[in-house]
Amino acid sequence: MSIKALFADYYEFTMLRAYFELNLTQEATFSLFVRKLPAPRNFLLACGLSDLLAEIESLRFGDDEIRYLRSLGDFSEPFLQWLRSFRFSGEIFAMREGTPFFDEEPILEVTAPIAEAQLIETLILNRIGSQTIFASKAARIVAAAQGRPVSDFGARRAQGIDAAILGARAFYLAGVASTSNVASGAAYGLPLEGTMAHSFVEACVSERAAFKGFTKIFPNATLLVDTYDTLAGVENAIAMAKAQGGDRPFRAIRLDSGDLAELSRSARKLLDEAGLSHVAIVASGGLDEHSIERLLADGAPIDAFGVGSDMAASADAPTLDIAYKLTEYAGEPRMKLSAGKRSLPGRKQVFREFSDGVAVRDVIALREETVKGSPLLRPVMIAGRRVKSESLTLAESQNHAREALAALPKDCRGLSAPPAPYPVAISSKLALLEQETRARLQRR
Amino acid sequence: MSIKALFADYYEFTMLRAYFELNLTQEATFSLFVRKLPAPRNFLLACGLSDLLAEIESLRFGDDEIRYLRSLGDFSEPFLQWLRSFRFSGEIFAMREGTPFFDEEPILEVTAPIAEAQLIETLILNRIGSQTIFASKAARIVAAAQGRPVSDFGARRAQGIDAAILGARAFYLAGVASTSNVASGAAYGLPLEGTMAHSFVEACVSERAAFKGFTKIFPNATLLVDTYDTLAGVENAIAMAKAQGGDRPFRAIRLDSGDLAELSRSARKLLDEAGLSHVAIVASGGLDEHSIERLLADGAPIDAFGVGSDMAASADAPTLDIAYKLTEYAGEPRMKLSAGKRSLPGRKQVFREFSDGVAVRDVIALREETVKGSPLLRPVMIAGRRVKSESLTLAESQNHAREALAALPKDCRGLSAPPAPYPVAISSKLALLEQETRARLQRR
Repeated sequence: MSIKALFADYYEFTMLRAYFELNLTQEATFSLFVRKLPAPRNFLLACGLSDLLAEIESLRFGDDEIRYLRSLGDFSEPFLQWLRSFRFSGEIFAMREGTPFFDEEPILEVTAPIAEAQLIETLILNRIGSQTIFASKAARIVAAAQGRPVSDFGARRAQGIDAAILGARAFYLAGVASTSNVASGAAYGLPLEGTMAHSFVEACVSERAAFKGFTKIFPNATLLVDTYDTLAGVENAIAMAKAQGGDRPFRAIRLDSGDLAELSRSARKLLDEAGLSHVAIVASGGLDEHSIERLLADGAPIDAFGVGSDMAASADAPTLDIAYKLTEYAGEPRMKLSAGKRSLPGRKQVFREFSDGVAVRDVIALREETVKGSPLLRPVMIAGRRVKSESLTLAESQNHAREALAALPKDCRGLSAPPAPYPVAISSKLALLEQETRARLQRR
Repeated sequence: MSIKALFADYYEFTMLRAYFELNLTQEATFSLFVRKLPAPRNFLLACGLSDLLAEIESLRFGDDEIRYLRSLGDFSEPFLQWLRSFRFSGEIFAMREGTPFFDEEPILEVTAPIAEAQLIETLILNRIGSQTIFASKAARIVAAAQGRPVSDFGARRAQGIDAAILGARAFYLAGVASTSNVASGAAYGLPLEGTMAHSFVEACVSERAAFKGFTKIFPNATLLVDTYDTLAGVENAIAMAKAQGGDRPFRAIRLDSGDLAELSRSARKLLDEAGLSHVAIVASGGLDEHSIERLLADGAPIDAFGVGSDMAASADAPTLDIAYKLTEYAGEPRMKLSAGKRSLPGRKQVFREFSDGVAVRDVIALREETVKGSPLLRPVMIAGRRVKSESLTLAESQNHAREALAALPKDCRGLSAPPAPYPVAISSKLALLEQETRARLQRR
C-alpha cells in the first residue's frame, strides 16, 4: 500500500465524495498562507516545494488504497472508481524555495477542479509547513554564526526520519554547510560531516589511544576531546600529534560540553603553543542562535558549530499557523468570516518592492494587477505537470535564498524583533474585493 | 536506494570503520535514557519500540547503499564488504511501550558487538525520542479531557509525514480516541474521524445547502458551523434538520473559532431547545491541555475535542535531552565524565515499587540485582530476533499505558508540576560501580 496517496485527512475523502455526488466539479482556487509569524521570527523562508510538486504530479490511488477506503464503508463504488483514476490536472503558483515571506502572504495557490485542489490540502500544509519551519530556523542560526560553517547534527533529535531527512535539506537551503545525516546526504547530495562519539573514546584503552587509532585511519579527523576532561583531552590530542610526527595529523577538535567560551579560549592557546594553529575548534552541545551569538560576542575562538535539537525541531517555534483556504469557486471569490481567521479572496500575487537592492515593502494584490515590484508567485505547475524552467536545483534554491535574505532590511535579518515589522500592504483592488465578498456573504 | 539503512550519522560509519580496522569487536552495552524531563512534563511515556525492533531486525545494506558509501571515499573495500553482510545479532532490553518513566532511567539497553550497537544509535534516538515526545504530550491532553474523546487533527501541522503517521499511533497508544490521518489509519488500523472543512461550506450556494447536501450522503456527519457566524450556523443546522424531518440527521456540530466556552453554551441551548439534545458538540482550533482544562473547569458543554498543532509537534516540549551512551565494553563498565552529562555504567534494570497499586518509587539498579518492585526492562530482542511473547499489539500497548498511567501518583498525572518529583533512587551497588568507574577513569 502506498501510504503517501492516503496522506490526507479523512474529511478530504468525505468532502470529495460529497463534491462528486453533489456535482460540485467547478474550478476552485485555494491559497496557502501563514496567518501570523511565530513571535521569535522576523520572516519565514519558503521551503518544500520541489518534492511536493513531484508528489502531487505522481499522486495515484492503487488497488490497495481503494480496498482500504472501501473497507471504511463511507464510499460508494462510483466514487471509488473515480478516485482510482485520479490525476491532479490543475495549476499551481508558488514562491520559489528560499524566498522570505511574511504574515498573510500567499506562498502557494492551487487552481483546479475543487476535488483535486481539496484532496492535496493535508499534504501541502504538512510539506510546506514543516520545511518552512526548518529553513526559517536554520536561517537564524546561520546568521548568528556570521560566516562560520554550521553543521546539522539533528538527525537523532528530529521528530521522525522524514523530518530529519527533509530537515537537513531545508537547513542546507538556508545556508547550513553540511549534515551528519547520511540518508539525507544520499537523497540530496548534501556534504556530510562526521566527528566521533564519546563511545569510541570510551571503547579504546585510553583517550590517547583512541585519537591515535582514529587519525591513523582518518588523518582529517575532528577529535572529540570532552569525554573525560576537556583540556586534558586537548593535551592528549597534542601529545598524540607530536608522537605521530606527521604534518597535519588531525583537522579539528570538538568541544561538546562545559563552558564553551572559556574552554575554546584555553584550547586555542594550547593548540597554538603546540604549533597547531591550523587545527580548528568545533563547538556543539545544546546550541541555538542565541548561544552562538553570545559565544561570538564573547570572542570565543570557535571556527564551526554543530547544531542539533534546537534546529532539528525548531524548538522555539515548532509549529506555524499555516492555512490552505478556498478563495474562489466557479469564478466567484470565496472566504470565511470566522472570528480571528481572515482569508483573502480571489487569485492573488505578492509584489516585493526594492530600493537600492533592499526590500522595502510587499503588496498582496490580485493576480492580474500590475503593481510596482517583483512578483513572487510563479507558475510552477500547469495542467498537472511541473514547469521545467521553474524546477530549480537545490544549489540554485540555496543561491536564491542567500540573495533574497541579503536583500531583506538589516533589522529583519537580526535575531531580535525589528522596531517595526516589515511592511506588507494589501492593494486597493484586493481590499475592495474583500469588502464586497464580505458584504455578499453576510447577506446570504 | 533504501534510505532507511543509511539513516545514521556519518560518524557511525567512520567509527565503524575504525572499530573494524582496530579490531574493536567485543560486546558493548549502550543505554538509552533521558537526562532530564522537559520542564512541562511530570513523566514521559515510552513509545516507538515495536516498529523500531522490526527496522533493526531487517536492517541491511544493499548494493546501492554500498555504492553511495563507497563514493564518499572514506571507506575501504574490506569494510564495505563487511557492511554488505551486516545483520544485527544482539540483544535488546526495553520498557514496554506505554510505560511511564523518569529522569536518567534506562528505557532501552542494547548489548551487541560494538559496531552493531553503535550503528543503530541515530535510528534508536530518533524513533524512541520522537514517539515518546508524542505519546507523552498526548497523555496530558487525554488527562485534561477527563474521559471525553480526543481526536488527532494534527497531520497537517506535524513536522513531516513520518511524524504525522507515527504521531497518530503514539497519540492512540496514549489514549487518544481517533485520528483524521487516513495514512495512519491504514498503517495501524486506527479509528478515523472526519468532519468537514470551511471550503466545503463555502463552495456550496449557502451554509444550509452545504449541511443538507452533506447529511444526505453522511447522515452521521459532524457539521462545521463557524464558517460565517457560529450561532447562525447552529441555527442553519437546526433548520436543515427540521426541514429534513429525519430522526437523527446529523451527529454533532463542530466549533472551530471564537470563545469556545461561550459558544458551546449557546449552541447547546439552541440544540436542546430544538429537541436535538442527542447532537454532540465538538471543539477544535488551537487547543492544548491547558485550554481544554480551562474550558471544562468553566463548565463548557463540549463532548469531544479535536487537537492539532500543539499535540502534533508537542509544541511546549518539542525535543528531549535523550542520549544513547556506552555503559560497558568487553565486560568492563564505561562512562563519560563530561561536565553535566552523567551516564550510569553497566547493564541495568529499573524496578518500580508499588503500594496499594500506586507507584511509590523507582530504583535504577544493576541488571542482575534483585530489588523490591517490578522490573520494567524486558528482553525484547535476542540474537537479533524479536521475542514473540514481548511483541504486543497496539491495543495491548494502549491497555498497558492506561493501567500504568492510572498507577502513577495523582500529583504526577496532573498538568502542574507535583510538589516533589517522583522519587527515582539508584541502588547502592550501582552507586558503588559508578564511583569505582569514575575513579578508574580518572586514574587513566
